[in-house]
Amino acid sequence: MHALTRLIFGSLLLTVTVCNGWLYGRFGERYQETDDVSLWPLPQKYQTTPTAFTLSANTFQIVHAKDSSAGPSCSLLQNAFRRYFIYIFDYVKKHRADQDKVSDTEMTELQVQITSTDPECDGYPSLKTDESYQLSVNQPTAVLKASNVWGALRGLETFSQLVYEDDYGAITINKTDVSDFPRFAHRGILLDTSRHFLPLKVILANLEAMAINKFNVFHWHIVDDNSFPFLSRTFPDLSQRGAYHPYTHVYTPADVKMVIEFARMRGIRVIAEFDTPGHTQSWGKGQANLLTPCYSGSTPSGTFGPVNPILNSTYEFMTSFFKEISTVFPDAYVHLGGDEVDFSCWKSNPDIQKFMEQQSFGQDYSKLESYYIQRLLDIVKATNKGYMVWQEVFDNGVKLKADTQIHVWKEKPDYNSEMAKITAAGFHALLSTPWYLNRISYGQDWQGIYKADPQSFNGVCSIMLYIRTFFDSSGTAEQKKLVIGGEACLWGEYVDATNLTPRLWPRASAIAERLWSNENVKDVGSAYTRLIKHRCRMLRRGIPAEPLFVGFCPHEYDSL
Amino acid sequence: MHALTRLIFGSLLLTVTVCNGWLYGRFGERYQETDDVSLWPLPQKYQTTPTAFTLSANTFQIVHAKDSSAGPSCSLLQNAFRRYFIYIFDYVKKHRADQDKVSDTEMTELQVQITSTDPECDGYPSLKTDESYQLSVNQPTAVLKASNVWGALRGLETFSQLVYEDDYGAITINKTDVSDFPRFAHRGILLDTSRHFLPLKVILANLEAMAINKFNVFHWHIVDDNSFPFLSRTFPDLSQRGAYHPYTHVYTPADVKMVIEFARMRGIRVIAEFDTPGHTQSWGKGQANLLTPCYSGSTPSGTFGPVNPILNSTYEFMTSFFKEISTVFPDAYVHLGGDEVDFSCWKSNPDIQKFMEQQSFGQDYSKLESYYIQRLLDIVKATNKGYMVWQEVFDNGVKLKADTQIHVWKEKPDYNSEMAKITAAGFHALLSTPWYLNRISYGQDWQGIYKADPQSFNGVCSIMLYIRTFFDSSGTAEQKKLVIGGEACLWGEYVDATNLTPRLWPRASAIAERLWSNENVKDVGSAYTRLIKHRCRMLRRGIPAEPLFVGFCPHEYDSL
Repeated sequence: MHALTRLIFGSLLLTVTVCNGWLYGRFGERYQETDDVSLWPLPQKYQTTPTAFTLSANTFQIVHAKDSSAGPSCSLLQNAFRRYFIYIFDYVKKHRADQDKVSDTEMTELQVQITSTDPECDGYPSLKTDESYQLSVNQPTAVLKASNVWGALRGLETFSQLVYEDDYGAITINKTDVSDFPRFAHRGILLDTSRHFLPLKVILANLEAMAINKFNVFHWHIVDDNSFPFLSRTFPDLSQRGAYHPYTHVYTPADVKMVIEFARMRGIRVIAEFDTPGHTQSWGKGQANLLTPCYSGSTPSGTFGPVNPILNSTYEFMTSFFKEISTVFPDAYVHLGGDEVDFSCWKSNPDIQKFMEQQSFGQDYSKLESYYIQRLLDIVKATNKGYMVWQEVFDNGVKLKADTQIHVWKEKPDYNSEMAKITAAGFHALLSTPWYLNRISYGQDWQGIYKADPQSFNGVCSIMLYIRTFFDSSGTAEQKKLVIGGEACLWGEYVDATNLTPRLWPRASAIAERLWSNENVKDVGSAYTRLIKHRCRMLRRGIPAEPLFVGFCPHEYDSL
Repeated sequence: MHALTRLIFGSLLLTVTVCNGWLYGRFGERYQETDDVSLWPLPQKYQTTPTAFTLSANTFQIVHAKDSSAGPSCSLLQNAFRRYFIYIFDYVKKHRADQDKVSDTEMTELQVQITSTDPECDGYPSLKTDESYQLSVNQPTAVLKASNVWGALRGLETFSQLVYEDDYGAITINKTDVSDFPRFAHRGILLDTSRHFLPLKVILANLEAMAINKFNVFHWHIVDDNSFPFLSRTFPDLSQRGAYHPYTHVYTPADVKMVIEFARMRGIRVIAEFDTPGHTQSWGKGQANLLTPCYSGSTPSGTFGPVNPILNSTYEFMTSFFKEISTVFPDAYVHLGGDEVDFSCWKSNPDIQKFMEQQSFGQDYSKLESYYIQRLLDIVKATNKGYMVWQEVFDNGVKLKADTQIHVWKEKPDYNSEMAKITAAGFHALLSTPWYLNRISYGQDWQGIYKADPQSFNGVCSIMLYIRTFFDSSGTAEQKKLVIGGEACLWGEYVDATNLTPRLWPRASAIAERLWSNENVKDVGSAYTRLIKHRCRMLRRGIPAEPLFVGFCPHEYDSL
């Protein structure tokens, strides 16, 4: 049994004495230790007590507070109320309808109060969304306050995590206060639906798991070299010819809408990635002349390289294509990729060589890459979208909009110096390097994943040091503010519907806490204890999260 | 498209010209390439042709041949007929009852002929079981011959693997002859139900997958330090107190019976392992005085070590316990463990020290271990069971029955020299060292798994070289005959119901082929092509086998 009462306030972790009056303020209140409670990710501030209340599926309600700006017409919240009601009471085998008696220590209501004028019921979450919430669990009514529905969703998750079964199976919650907000605004998971197609069911289940872990970005790496499962209305041949199968292995517009709406209901943004000019082999199957013909000596070899950057038709295609993308995906950002461009095919092509001469690029093909990316960025900018790019685009010196987000993934140079460099240049940065969850090894690799931190870099990078001296000394803090978060990446070479979910969870949960909780929450031992229980909770909610180590859950996963 | 006709005969792989008469002997026969067929493990000898027959769920039957010694009362075969009928026709969405017409090229029957007097319908497979079969697929009747039901099961699996859907969705099989038998008699999978409890459903599904891969031994590492889920009728407290939970996390006698019968129906032996004297922490919870009390200085520390080898009560317990085990598990062998005994607790205990003196063991605690094992082996021998032990028991020089099987698992010394040493001493050996499938790494590790071979050692080991010169020079061949096979081990530290099945398959399939097919079948490229299809076949049969690499299956796994 751990400390009965905890106060975690920012970087402080104090065990405080609970005054008797508070503990035993009401005759008949039960005294219950909260061994079964395990919050994940850990809230920024919370205070719990041994005073326990019971909840009955017959009487307990989640309702809109009187002074909430949201009401029953807010279907996002209504859906969330239902979801969390089921999570809380799924243990209950049958409802005893004859039991009307309300016990002394029963909690009958959770009131949800949205405080801002616009609850954003029909909106989409964004990078600037306020996800904070305050939760006060007390008898007879618990109150959850948030300025909008997004914070309410996070608070409902926390509320449901506070509920446990006592030794007699009674659904129980302890008197608790929580004040919570995320450390980082961008907390993402990348899934790759090109190397293996992922059935819709798998994507939705993982969105559900994301919500349980307070992730808020689904980075949908939807197409790549291997297949093009996105059905474009403008260019249907892309999937007709580029998908593994034109009917069974594609995401139709209805499928994509469903993913976006399912995600929205859980406060999750969907950021689609259409990676160019490399990683585009599958695009070439359904779009003639898009890719560069490679040459063997003086004749075309029949194979193709990256997107052909020297044809106007390429930019016309991209203009139409990204116009469609900008309407299909409501998020303010689109991920444009830009990683791992192989220059060998460009080098082999005489037309490209001629163009390089004309542009005075010499033999520097990264200039050609930048030329392409620059034109692409202008095209996307015209659709009023912001963009995310992999770090190469920044490294190659492409001119970027101020709000561009640079996605750090490479192992060399080390990610700390890269994060420093990007933020020193004033750009938003997000980290994935230590979080390539496709890479597996034997043992408890979640610990290394848990320890990595997007703000572990040391202020300005060396090359900026000189410049910095002309400004104030707050450079470091300013830089760290530019870190918007990170993403777990699960590249698809070795995962599909058979093994993706247990490979992702609970390893991604480690990242969830890193990105949500206070930076001082980093004790691996405490995390282990909580994460074991959190994993069992995910099992209980139908997510086949794999075990951390030897042990068991009261209710094992019962499928294959 | 590969060679249309193949003859694989032992180490020969010849492309032969098929004479026209054979190919087109019958007017109306269809010519169909067999791109979709992918046999796994590869039969010892087979010859297939482009002549294709169709099968209809309305007319096709699997029947007992007239001169078979087995008939409809052989429920093992009746069950297998049903299972393979469903595998073959699960593609068919509905049966068109109005279609009575039999086409010219239809195959309507598979006759199963058991040739020996006793078909062994109600028996159990054993180490000496003849699993060979001959399969002749021709119109209008295919014939499967085997001396007993066990060979018939293997042949039914092969028959089902020969069936494919042609381009128009017709269920098709090509004229083919197969003559097949396993290279090794012992082809096992170890599952560990102690570190994590595995629900019955998971065990049964993996037995199903084993049959699809022609594995024939389920090594049930049923108890260990962490939990004791085996419900013993004689000592019910062992699971009552030693299981993770006395009701939800135990295998009742009925459960164990079901596992054994489910396995038997698939030609799989169930060999239970009750590992002592180490790995027994969970035994101590329900059996007082079984484990050695550890001392801290001159007082008991409250912790316990391995089984206490100096008390008569220990051997009385073991006698009763293994008497029960010998009746619960019908197999002729029981695995007695004997690995990784930690001597520190024994060393700390003054009673043990006194006993060591009395026995003149000096400070050599491996002598004490051997003393225990020797007495245990005598106890088990009295139950008329053979035994398997981990290699330490052999390494420590314990006196073993001639039919003892030594299980090689350690990385040092290298397994080749250990296999050589064991077989030079005349004992049966089986290999697991390269097949610890719990160990994972990023990438296509199935290739290394596939390449390992239990007979890769070089004849006699050095220390036996002198002795050998007194005998004939066939020592090496004689030694290799003593290799009975191998086992894939999936230890349970990091696997449970959530991730076990995809972690095991198709990686264990690589071992299946190594242990069944001819030793010359070792081309990784050919294996890759077939294994990809075999993996898709497992998906189709409901086994969530993970992908080898980028790609897709026509029918993806549709659960979580």
